[in-house]
Amino acid sequence: MENTLKELVWEFSREAWNEYLPHLSIDCTVFGYNTAHIKVLLVKIKDQELWSLPGGYIKKEEDIKEAANRILTDRTGANDIYLQQFNFFAAANRSEDFFKDYEDGLWNKQRFISLGFYALADYEKVTPVTDIFSSACEWVDINDLPKMMMDHRSILDQALLNLRKELNYKPIGYNLLPLEFTMPELQRLYEIILNKKLNRGNFYRKMIAYDILDKMDEPRMEGKAHKAPNLYRFNMEKYNSALQNGLKEGW
Amino acid sequence: MENTLKELVWEFSREAWNEYLPHLSIDCTVFGYNTAHIKVLLVKIKDQELWSLPGGYIKKEEDIKEAANRILTDRTGANDIYLQQFNFFAAANRSEDFFKDYEDGLWNKQRFISLGFYALADYEKVTPVTDIFSSACEWVDINDLPKMMMDHRSILDQALLNLRKELNYKPIGYNLLPLEFTMPELQRLYEIILNKKLNRGNFYRKMIAYDILDKMDEPRMEGKAHKAPNLYRFNMEKYNSALQNGLKEGW
Repeated sequence: MENTLKELVWEFSREAWNEYLPHLSIDCTVFGYNTAHIKVLLVKIKDQELWSLPGGYIKKEEDIKEAANRILTDRTGANDIYLQQFNFFAAANRSEDFFKDYEDGLWNKQRFISLGFYALADYEKVTPVTDIFSSACEWVDINDLPKMMMDHRSILDQALLNLRKELNYKPIGYNLLPLEFTMPELQRLYEIILNKKLNRGNFYRKMIAYDILDKMDEPRMEGKAHKAPNLYRFNMEKYNSALQNGLKEGW
Repeated sequence: MENTLKELVWEFSREAWNEYLPHLSIDCTVFGYNTAHIKVLLVKIKDQELWSLPGGYIKKEEDIKEAANRILTDRTGANDIYLQQFNFFAAANRSEDFFKDYEDGLWNKQRFISLGFYALADYEKVTPVTDIFSSACEWVDINDLPKMMMDHRSILDQALLNLRKELNYKPIGYNLLPLEFTMPELQRLYEIILNKKLNRGNFYRKMIAYDILDKMDEPRMEGKAHKAPNLYRFNMEKYNSALQNGLKEGW
């Protein structure tokens, strides 16, 4: 017979007090790109019509980035996901309502400050895995999000906003696009993330000015030869340097 | 006779375990603008040639923003400072070295995850106040920073980077400039924060496009009338709306 959510939570709680740093949790907003849609990886709470971001806690001696990677690997099977810390979520009453039916002394009923990470994952390489508190772990379209627990919808919204801002400072696309891609395919990725149309000429000029692309000698062969679109790859040395040092943009 | 730093820290520690959330601290990077210089408010550690950001801890039931405001008011006497949370600092060993001569059990020797805020303050309205662990609290020019404790220099650098990025999304200048100012004065503020020259025509066009300024009927009267520069004020309704909803910029 399956344990109820309540029993599972109490069992987890007994171990958690020894293993993890109190008051601190991690929530990961994992974005994936698939055929012109942005998806986000969500977990469905057992016995409830409520979804949450994949999350977890920090072992007492564990580095934060290590903890976030462990949590992600547990939910996705993948371990080379681009992961970025972006902010913290700390309202004093953020989990009050969710745990109101539990007695005091439960690990999960503490006040938690959540450390927010967002990740960009290769949709194809991820195998969503449920944890003990969940009945499902799935990619969900960001335009069709279900009801989420606590402040998780707000964390997700802020992760997306942050990703959009980061587009002006950091290159994006490696791991989300195939090895070789056309300029319109790259533009489409930006448009999907930004949720708006971009001017084709401006996009091309800006992207070339970023100086992170290598143009392939051979265009993509499909249909008429004179219409074959140019193919590009990310120049990984320049791409990684731009990840580190930022793109020149804005003021 | 003055207590040594060590005695003061142990005395504080006994109370702190009851009063504050463990493992969590707040560090504030307070920027002030004065005669074309960006200053930052720093605290000098007693008995040491080391400076730190103003910081503190979060009371068990206290909201984070409330805690950050309390900490700032304690150090500055001012209580309407624009305050923005921006990231967390969590390396597992970030305070190991600093507290290595203290015995275990000391509040301050725990592992702390620091929640980072930055603030923009009116230099004139701030009266720096030392706390019990410090021998000085002063405005320091960001181009002439002293040696700082732990990872505080890195927190400061990231706060500044964040402020620079935010210039593309949020209006700035209220509280830093006088009520009425010229376009070159506003441009100078941006240049000082960004630490680079901006093109005058581009700056003007961008700033007008932001639509947060009201032009005054009367120019500033100084010298020859035909050279009198136009004066502007922030339109606070539009300014606050842009603070909330962001400026249209970037991609």
